[in-house]
Amino acid sequence: MNNFTSIGKKIVAIGRNYSDHAKELGNTVPKSPFFFLKPTSSYLLQGGSVELPKGSEVHHEVELGVVIGKNGRDITANEAFDYVAGYALGIDLTARDLQNEVIKKGLPWSAAKGFDTFTPIGDFIPKDLIKDPSNVNLWLKVNGQMKQNGSTKDMVFKIPTLIEHISSIMRLEKGDLILTGTPSGVGPIFAGDVMTAGLNVGDKTLSQIEFPAVQRNRLNKL
Amino acid sequence: MNNFTSIGKKIVAIGRNYSDHAKELGNTVPKSPFFFLKPTSSYLLQGGSVELPKGSEVHHEVELGVVIGKNGRDITANEAFDYVAGYALGIDLTARDLQNEVIKKGLPWSAAKGFDTFTPIGDFIPKDLIKDPSNVNLWLKVNGQMKQNGSTKDMVFKIPTLIEHISSIMRLEKGDLILTGTPSGVGPIFAGDVMTAGLNVGDKTLSQIEFPAVQRNRLNKL
Ligand SMILES: [Mg+2]
Ligand SMILES: [Mg+2]
Ligand SMILES: [Mg+2]
Repeated sequence: MNNFTSIGKKIVAIGRNYSDHAKELGNTVPKSPFFFLKPTSSYLLQGGSVELPKGSEVHHEVELGVVIGKNGRDITANEAFDYVAGYALGIDLTARDLQNEVIKKGLPWSAAKGFDTFTPIGDFIPKDLIKDPSNVNLWLKVNGQMKQNGSTKDMVFKIPTLIEHISSIMRLEKGDLILTGTPSGVGPIFAGDVMTAGLNVGDKTLSQIEFPAVQRNRLNKL
Repeated sequence: MNNFTSIGKKIVAIGRNYSDHAKELGNTVPKSPFFFLKPTSSYLLQGGSVELPKGSEVHHEVELGVVIGKNGRDITANEAFDYVAGYALGIDLTARDLQNEVIKKGLPWSAAKGFDTFTPIGDFIPKDLIKDPSNVNLWLKVNGQMKQNGSTKDMVFKIPTLIEHISSIMRLEKGDLILTGTPSGVGPIFAGDVMTAGLNVGDKTLSQIEFPAVQRNRLNKL
């Protein structure tokens, strides 16, 4: 499943799944999981640059990604891990000003979350390498300064619950990615910044990614 | 491009693109286009049944679908039709109660719009067969009774503007579908109902689809 970014058809991203992060943006912790879709056209692989749309404030959100290994619908929490092929370290980039605007108006989040390059992603990590995905350390630095440093222990809804919830609405398919929410510490990135993020299990770094940010020039519409 | 439903990676659906429809739901006509994403897992081909999630009120929205023929980013309105392979008649099914709830809370529309079977779709119509896509009649009947009967003449934002807007945010890819919004007359469908919809150019019916609706039983989460 090294090719999940090219064969996958959807990215399902969970909102407010760490209580400290929900609170830092002034939101309450949800009573049931909710999600939004990011287009697969937003994937950015190692070597690429994050393109910041002119005039928008873009926030980093480091997240554990779950890669789906086979098609399933109405998957129960009990059988959820049978459908998991592995994991990936991802960043759910967000045009925060645009998101705040649509939240006020009750409009969809799709644009604020869906710009090209808004889902920087690391290599596929086979399931066997992470025995306990609810005990994983996620961190993100901007220009070498630690900004986010959390543990998946603090997820409000765990992976089996997320898979049960999503697949009760839309079937999951081989190659789909679930972004499981971000710990606190989100904040803006600017042109010239470099983001570094990592996924650690114990004292072992299983994935590390680095992405520079540049201004996007051709975007004249927003 | 008969296979756009299997190769396509996203469905970009425009909201409130006919003023009569915006008004019938108590909304204002938007000053610029906005869109949400539907997952391709929501496609329903001829022969299938719409599955109504228990406890939700599902509304029909008949729409002109635009099938993208080649990849493009920052496509200008002028060159937009170079990226169009053709069209398809689609229904953007919506769990209206769920949508009203998330609109109030400023939450994403993805679940309300994204259930399996929520995008019934007709056959691919090659571009040559519709010389003027802004003069197409769209209609939808429930159990033989006319409910929606509109013309793409009344679209607030025309196809070139939509393609320019979307592709300034997310690149469009071969097989992607744009649902261009629905004329007025939306309303609920119930188990046992049969929807029939058509796309006419002049006195010629270029596409006609028919889908029965059944209750979905296994969904216990909503
Ligand atoms: Mg999608
Ligand atoms: Mg996020
Ligand atoms: Mg619609």
